Amino acid sequence: MALPEPLLDTAKLLEQLRELGAIGHDAAQGGRIRIALTDEEKAGRDLLVRWMRELDLEVRVDQIGNIFGVLHAEHPEGMAQPLMMGSHIDTVRNAGALDGCYGVLAGLAVVRAYRQAGLRPARAIVVAAFSNEEGVRYQPDMMGSLVYAGGMDVQAALHTVGTDGTRLGDELARIGYAGDMLPGAIVPREYIELHIEQGPVLEAEGKSIGVVESLQGISWQKITINGVANHAGTTPTRLRHDAGYAAAACVAFLREQVVAAAPDTTLATVGSLRVEPDLINVIPRKATFTVDLRDPDEQRLQAAERRLADFLVTLAEREGVTIETEQLVRFEPVVFDAALAARIQAAAERRGLPHRRMTSGAGHDAQMLARIAPSAMIFVPSRGGISHNPREHTHDDQLALGAQVLLDVVQDCLRGQ
Amino acid sequence: MALPEPLLDTAKLLEQLRELGAIGHDAAQGGRIRIALTDEEKAGRDLLVRWMRELDLEVRVDQIGNIFGVLHAEHPEGMAQPLMMGSHIDTVRNAGALDGCYGVLAGLAVVRAYRQAGLRPARAIVVAAFSNEEGVRYQPDMMGSLVYAGGMDVQAALHTVGTDGTRLGDELARIGYAGDMLPGAIVPREYIELHIEQGPVLEAEGKSIGVVESLQGISWQKITINGVANHAGTTPTRLRHDAGYAAAACVAFLREQVVAAAPDTTLATVGSLRVEPDLINVIPRKATFTVDLRDPDEQRLQAAERRLADFLVTLAEREGVTIETEQLVRFEPVVFDAALAARIQAAAERRGLPHRRMTSGAGHDAQMLARIAPSAMIFVPSRGGISHNPREHTHDDQLALGAQVLLDVVQDCLRGQ
Repeated sequence: MALPEPLLDTAKLLEQLRELGAIGHDAAQGGRIRIALTDEEKAGRDLLVRWMRELDLEVRVDQIGNIFGVLHAEHPEGMAQPLMMGSHIDTVRNAGALDGCYGVLAGLAVVRAYRQAGLRPARAIVVAAFSNEEGVRYQPDMMGSLVYAGGMDVQAALHTVGTDGTRLGDELARIGYAGDMLPGAIVPREYIELHIEQGPVLEAEGKSIGVVESLQGISWQKITINGVANHAGTTPTRLRHDAGYAAAACVAFLREQVVAAAPDTTLATVGSLRVEPDLINVIPRKATFTVDLRDPDEQRLQAAERRLADFLVTLAEREGVTIETEQLVRFEPVVFDAALAARIQAAAERRGLPHRRMTSGAGHDAQMLARIAPSAMIFVPSRGGISHNPREHTHDDQLALGAQVLLDVVQDCLRGQ
Repeated sequence: MALPEPLLDTAKLLEQLRELGAIGHDAAQGGRIRIALTDEEKAGRDLLVRWMRELDLEVRVDQIGNIFGVLHAEHPEGMAQPLMMGSHIDTVRNAGALDGCYGVLAGLAVVRAYRQAGLRPARAIVVAAFSNEEGVRYQPDMMGSLVYAGGMDVQAALHTVGTDGTRLGDELARIGYAGDMLPGAIVPREYIELHIEQGPVLEAEGKSIGVVESLQGISWQKITINGVANHAGTTPTRLRHDAGYAAAACVAFLREQVVAAAPDTTLATVGSLRVEPDLINVIPRKATFTVDLRDPDEQRLQAAERRLADFLVTLAEREGVTIETEQLVRFEPVVFDAALAARIQAAAERRGLPHRRMTSGAGHDAQMLARIAPSAMIFVPSRGGISHNPREHTHDDQLALGAQVLLDVVQDCLRGQ
């Protein structure tokens, strides 16, 4: 007798996406607000844990609050090298319903397919929801997976003070998710993360599946320029030390010189910019802004950082201002596991789905897990490339195809062991 | 027998500056708060009027609360073409002691010199303190002199509602300074205003006296750029509509193209700048900033405005953003009376004082009086160019020199009639 095939229950996946997406709904601005370790995010965690228990998974929570649902293997030794899928369920302000949640709930859908077929996998399957991926309240982002992969001490992470003055460890205990498992205790044999693209490339090229073989390096800096406030009407230009102009010159330089040097790969963004005292007739004494530099190649990323640093030296001297830079985040580019990427591509090909190899422009938990296990990602299109926005959208059919490819890859990995 | 010379009592002038400066003192933040028509400003007015009476001046108050102290001439017909000096005694929040008060009290010092020498001037001398020059509570600023010069209807001015919801006319009556003289009733033959520079030029160049021959035109605009918010890591540069970059390009253009076209006269300042949503990894969807353009020449000011407007059209098309501009303030430049400026320069030369011709970057009552009488201003240095701040400072010796030049110019005008 042939074994039953695990079949995906697409309707259930979509229903769970809607149900989880309703938690933290913001009627005023649209979307949902489920920032890490808030009451709303606790409600999302509680729902996820309930769904894991309904699938009879063993639920484990580690010291940084990462949640794992374990479908045990036929034989106890199957736990030695489990397959892990996952992502996160925390959100930014006024987020879409799919960012993160799609990868976690598609993981549950894969497990459900095994359960409904009455199959036990050859190796354990673990569905992970990592804490504080978005980093809205506590920096850095991707903290749960970073700690899990050994890149940050768990005690240091628990002592993180948030933008609202709270201590992460206190909030984690308050919502009941300060687990006792050591981060990293379950070492997967492979990690697969399904995610919406959050960019416009797949949609623009008419592809259904992105085979994500690498992830851009990211350099985040905060730059503070101190000049001298003075009267806009009485201070000759040659006597000005205008922090606002210096900041603007830097923003323009990033686009016109740094990006222009490698326009196909280097990205530069100044997303936050503030001046003080912010009055119409006062020359700004202070400007604070952020610089987000990305490139999939470490050498080019370093070159961009160097160009910026050199410019700041010249600018400070030319304008008579002082400039301080603070590195907020620095991740080298990640090259994902080639064999796992090949499995994803093969799965898309078997289904006849238009696909492409690509790099991920955004950061994901997979880049942290890649430190401890062969990892790769599957992308599905995002309408208009819109992300971190209530208008984030992927068509249900595309969501179903992505989950199907995930299930196919999981089966392939478990067969191929 | 030679006539006695009027001699300046410097000590008395400095003492009165200190005494008036003590009214409204703010122990918490430093400086003084004597905002127009408050109890504190009434106390300042009462003190000024007492000092005018001590000099046996005729005190007159007009319907907008402007105060005039008249030293009558030898012959009644001397009142037909009086000489007027003055400024204002209201302040911003946490002001220095000199802004405005110096011009009024130096006027009293000139009158005192005549009194103490037992001299009657050939023409009447009027010391004026104009209402609400600072415009902190009631807009527009320079209101008392604007009404006096016929630029604003007195009834409209009295109906002005303040930031605290009060009606200007009610407050004026409450503090007892709703006079019955018609604004503009005393038409001076000339108006001279002595003031601290409120800018760094005289100090930087080691000059004691500024011969103010013009007052800059001012153009204030608010510019709003609408782009598209998108993910900093996934949006190729060619697909971006970055409102923040567009704003920065505009700030850089103002300095590098607009100011550079007339570096000695055109000033451009972006004092306020905000981006939305102001997040490190989100391309700004919106940028709002102000542009303060100034030039003492109307043609050049218009040329600067045109260059900016042309650039905005190009920028909007190049970046795929929409740009809205709103004119907030627009004053044409004022050219002061050349003969009066020449008298000021001659007085400085006779005293051997280092001096320079200059334009005023800030607005002053003199620009309003210039509509009805030949007017000019005398500036003394401001330490560090600091103004509207408790740290505003001019050395006593400099204050004495400025008052001496004022006295010299008054004598010259009265002799020269």
